[in-house]
Amino acid sequence: MPGIFYGVSVGPGDPELLTLKAVRIINACPVIAAPRTKNGNMIALSIAEQTVDLTGKTIIPLDFPMNPDSTAQHENHCRIAEQLAVYLGNGQDTAMLNIGDVSLYSSCTYIAAELAEMGFETKMCAGVPSFCAAAAELSIPLSEGSKPLTIIPAQYEAAREMLGRDGTAVIMKSGRKLSEIKEMLSGSETVFAAENCGLPGQRLYHNIDEIRDCGYLTVMIVK
Amino acid sequence: MPGIFYGVSVGPGDPELLTLKAVRIINACPVIAAPRTKNGNMIALSIAEQTVDLTGKTIIPLDFPMNPDSTAQHENHCRIAEQLAVYLGNGQDTAMLNIGDVSLYSSCTYIAAELAEMGFETKMCAGVPSFCAAAAELSIPLSEGSKPLTIIPAQYEAAREMLGRDGTAVIMKSGRKLSEIKEMLSGSETVFAAENCGLPGQRLYHNIDEIRDCGYLTVMIVK
Repeated sequence: MPGIFYGVSVGPGDPELLTLKAVRIINACPVIAAPRTKNGNMIALSIAEQTVDLTGKTIIPLDFPMNPDSTAQHENHCRIAEQLAVYLGNGQDTAMLNIGDVSLYSSCTYIAAELAEMGFETKMCAGVPSFCAAAAELSIPLSEGSKPLTIIPAQYEAAREMLGRDGTAVIMKSGRKLSEIKEMLSGSETVFAAENCGLPGQRLYHNIDEIRDCGYLTVMIVK
Repeated sequence: MPGIFYGVSVGPGDPELLTLKAVRIINACPVIAAPRTKNGNMIALSIAEQTVDLTGKTIIPLDFPMNPDSTAQHENHCRIAEQLAVYLGNGQDTAMLNIGDVSLYSSCTYIAAELAEMGFETKMCAGVPSFCAAAAELSIPLSEGSKPLTIIPAQYEAAREMLGRDGTAVIMKSGRKLSEIKEMLSGSETVFAAENCGLPGQRLYHNIDEIRDCGYLTVMIVK
């Protein structure tokens, strides 16, 4: 019997924000794949290993070159799917770990689609997104009444016009575009932010002027 | 010492989607408050009690009359805060359980704000939103590349115009407005839906025409 591929969300950083389901799946899988940054960090793996004993499991680092070209991205997803297919073909259940939730700005569903096309069974395990953890740490509602909530990656080209929409806006991964975003938000907007949410070095902001420099895992909430 | 108020997310329905943090907090609190529908159902409580033994705890049902008037809603939040303040004042830690995530379309942050004004310590515990669980069950990405994601409550007055925007849209609680929403989405849109996600009677849809009648906890994903 071939193994099953699981896309497993590990939440935004606090190892206690793993779900019971994520813990069960990670415990049961002999093979654990997780993204590796170009500096060699495996953040999703380090979140999981604070909660689940990974001793004796096969760890597969996954590299995602920052290439905006969709053909190159697709080729990388196919390469990773082929890499993981070897373990699945040997009957080993394989969990791919993802920061936050697996369906939000993650490559996991694409890799799962490639594996499904190759005939493997795939399952996804939902998790806590970083913006929910940020709102909880800030003790503020993300969405109110019957108003919409818009999630905007900082690199989205039309971010500026989306910020004028009704309801709450969340800007994801705003660290690298901080000065541009601060300029966009200057004025009377109510802005909250969380940096390294749930990770060591967490910082919370209740005012945009407090934010001078911020890390990669930054979520801004604009009311 | 007065007790601490915890707003605890229990996820959308599957009791395995509680986080380790939610389980720890619920276990530790002698008083558990949870919303009650007008039919007497306490869905958040029934999700939690499949995972945590609530024997011996004080259970407080919370009623939220469906009143669109914001003054009446505020008065109800104050009434609930006063009700819970009795237990907190007696030194009993109190957890208020919430379906999905506590910061999304929940009354919990308002009640926490009232309690904080009364001098009590309050903490929020993030959870898995229903739209993340729906996407995981459907094995589809919610958001892709650097495109935005818009969460729209079905009763939002300008839902129609938001559906034409860039990126993915999620329509929450679309059950009661199904025919209106089907009419809005008629055409070439790619629509997925999950009904009673993670609960008994879960149904998944990959096409809008399959949806004939659907329950309260319905999430639609429009690409």
